[in-house]
Amino acid sequence: MLTAHTIKILQSLDKKKFRQKYNLFLVEGNKIICELSNSNFKIKEILSTHPEKLDFPGVTITHISENELKKISFLKTPKDSVAVCYIEEEQEMEDQDIQLVLDGIQDPGNLGTIIRLADWFGIEQIICSEDTVDFYNPKVIQASMGSFTRVNMVYCDLVEYLSATDNTNIGTDMDGENIYSFEKPKKMNLILGNEGNGMRAETEKLLHKKITIPRFGKSKSTESLNVSMAAGIILGQFFSK
Amino acid sequence: MLTAHTIKILQSLDKKKFRQKYNLFLVEGNKIICELSNSNFKIKEILSTHPEKLDFPGVTITHISENELKKISFLKTPKDSVAVCYIEEEQEMEDQDIQLVLDGIQDPGNLGTIIRLADWFGIEQIICSEDTVDFYNPKVIQASMGSFTRVNMVYCDLVEYLSATDNTNIGTDMDGENIYSFEKPKKMNLILGNEGNGMRAETEKLLHKKITIPRFGKSKSTESLNVSMAAGIILGQFFSK
Repeated sequence: MLTAHTIKILQSLDKKKFRQKYNLFLVEGNKIICELSNSNFKIKEILSTHPEKLDFPGVTITHISENELKKISFLKTPKDSVAVCYIEEEQEMEDQDIQLVLDGIQDPGNLGTIIRLADWFGIEQIICSEDTVDFYNPKVIQASMGSFTRVNMVYCDLVEYLSATDNTNIGTDMDGENIYSFEKPKKMNLILGNEGNGMRAETEKLLHKKITIPRFGKSKSTESLNVSMAAGIILGQFFSK
Repeated sequence: MLTAHTIKILQSLDKKKFRQKYNLFLVEGNKIICELSNSNFKIKEILSTHPEKLDFPGVTITHISENELKKISFLKTPKDSVAVCYIEEEQEMEDQDIQLVLDGIQDPGNLGTIIRLADWFGIEQIICSEDTVDFYNPKVIQASMGSFTRVNMVYCDLVEYLSATDNTNIGTDMDGENIYSFEKPKKMNLILGNEGNGMRAETEKLLHKKITIPRFGKSKSTESLNVSMAAGIILGQFFSK
């Protein structure tokens, strides 16, 4: 049985303030939880309606009722288990050949999708502006589908970072070079801006190259592609060469 | 002032049954509503908190209060206006050079994203299995961001359609040809399967070609890309040639 106190702490973990206070975050569903065993993340405990389905030597697995699960889950349709994990200390790796740089991405679903995309293409590090949505947000973790265990996330001052990096800083722009003829630099940062406003002016100043995805539709609408979709199409093209 | 009866009818339009009964669907927000003027869709009336911002000759625009808007909007954060539109009679165009074929896509957000993607690449027709989520679902309309006015949607028996088409039927498969070396046929249907289960066995039997997006990440996870993201990467590649 979970105490009211424990339930209250777990429920508070949808807020960054409390994740930082307790140094904890939640991972839900056996499928994603199983990916934790191949990662650096340390599990404090697992709460499960079916503990017999899990095999985590050295980890306390507590049996909880469906009703208790409902109380602590952040999902509309709670899954089988919730793993309470320790937040890892952030470590910046040296610059990788291809990195993503996020300038104020706000939607947790977008960040999760971008992490999943990075994982698919083997991109090992994502650099985020300090106001990018928190990586440990439960919606980000769920949308990343376990990919969050394989991509290193760094939050920092972007202007400082982009000024100092040796990678070529590439951003999208309506008047940029066509991605289909663009010569990919050996070492690069692909910079993705905020959903509504794009990248900040001070970020844009630090771009070395601008690229564009050509539109083939006849529509004169100014509608652009969603940021994660644009990233997918660009990466798909970069990896074709 | 909206009558209680009108409010009740409008609120019922999130259900397919009632959209069909009244032959109506809703479009929300001035930005998307403005795209209706360049389309075949007929507007019955517009309800707006700021009618002076809209210019639709021949269309009744009724002033409503913020409170009334809240009652009839399907959005978490209601926008300025709601257009009540007539459902168009479905018309199948002849096969286009590139078409998308959806086999049981269930998530309205995914369908909206796929319609937006089709519009970007100038794909004019999407063929859907009868159990694909309804195109007039308010979440589909909103996620498509106005692109729904430019893509022709057809719901039909997929087995019948795919058996009769002259287009090459192409689907994704783990063991398919690499999209980076695949020779794109002149006329084709790109078939996208259900989010959880992929395409049906009877659909798969009607494929002429199978393709795959290579994974570059080292992870052995069986996690695949989201269906709309996969579609974006494949189309991005097809249009590069």
